[in-house]
Amino acid sequence: MPRVVDHDERRRSIASALLTVAARDGHESVTSRAVAAEAGMATGALWHYFAGFDEVVRAAAAEVTRRTDERIRAATEGRSGLAKAQAAMAEALPLTDETRTEAAVVVGFWGRVAGHASTPDAGTPTLSLWQDILREGLIEAVAAGELRADTPQDDLLALLRSITYGQQVVHVTSPEPPASHLSVLESILSPWRPSTD
Amino acid sequence: MPRVVDHDERRRSIASALLTVAARDGHESVTSRAVAAEAGMATGALWHYFAGFDEVVRAAAAEVTRRTDERIRAATEGRSGLAKAQAAMAEALPLTDETRTEAAVVVGFWGRVAGHASTPDAGTPTLSLWQDILREGLIEAVAAGELRADTPQDDLLALLRSITYGQQVVHVTSPEPPASHLSVLESILSPWRPSTD
Repeated sequence: MPRVVDHDERRRSIASALLTVAARDGHESVTSRAVAAEAGMATGALWHYFAGFDEVVRAAAAEVTRRTDERIRAATEGRSGLAKAQAAMAEALPLTDETRTEAAVVVGFWGRVAGHASTPDAGTPTLSLWQDILREGLIEAVAAGELRADTPQDDLLALLRSITYGQQVVHVTSPEPPASHLSVLESILSPWRPSTD
Repeated sequence: MPRVVDHDERRRSIASALLTVAARDGHESVTSRAVAAEAGMATGALWHYFAGFDEVVRAAAAEVTRRTDERIRAATEGRSGLAKAQAAMAEALPLTDETRTEAAVVVGFWGRVAGHASTPDAGTPTLSLWQDILREGLIEAVAAGELRADTPQDDLLALLRSITYGQQVVHVTSPEPPASHLSVLESILSPWRPSTD
């Protein structure tokens, strides 16, 4: 009896193949031919699973999010408040080989969607759980007195998203050491830490 | 006697042609063929002026900067302090049809360079004069008492760059009204405004 290959599983393995090619050969090597070869299938077979190559890139960006979410779950386990928020940010900012490769993938993804008139859900792959955990962390930080009671939490959440995107672009355009990315994060938190006078 | 066409002028007219195609037809229509047609030349003629299409895209990003710089010069004329910094930011954040088209072009550009191992000057086209004016504005704002004396000016400059990139990505991935982008800007300035108690 032939094995029934799960359609979603196959889509994910194609998305993973794209990430492997990007990490190993650079994003400019990411073509439908290379991704299909990496996934062990004929190029034409891709189109049984995706309507076009932009969809493959979108699935790869979603796969980046899934992996980031998994790491965030592990990294924030047992933490709360600022430690939780900072641990979540550390899995998204381009601080390690892994997150730097992911930054290149998501920036490449944004570049591909930049021309499309309407991409209402193009941001979704990079948000999700990450924002929920950040929100929890900020609420806990205020409750614990790590951040001032008048901390504008919604503004901070919007800023955390903005600098994460922004520093991923900085990584692609003019790479900086991890300390620079962490310093940008600290510069939006520090005004809201309680005064130690 | 044949007219000597200035090489740099021709390069700029090709870069401008790319921006015209992007604004009119969307970034996915930006191909060497379409850009050459818009510039009124054969596709092959492009390669007398550029080593490859990535270079054309880079020149278009530089042209975006040149135009932004021109607008910043006009918009900040006669202003100082926070008014100068805010006027400069308003020419870079995706607030109008013009700056939103430019955001799509620069995000598309970043996507193209995302895969290249080394792009040391890829950020340059989007910085330049803009950062000088922001630095001046912050220094003047502190001197005039619009911002507190302990305002961390270097940190704020890094943040202004980060949120500009970040909100340009936000525009491409999940468009928001101008008020949202301005609110992100205000949220990094407000902690440093003098208390009005």
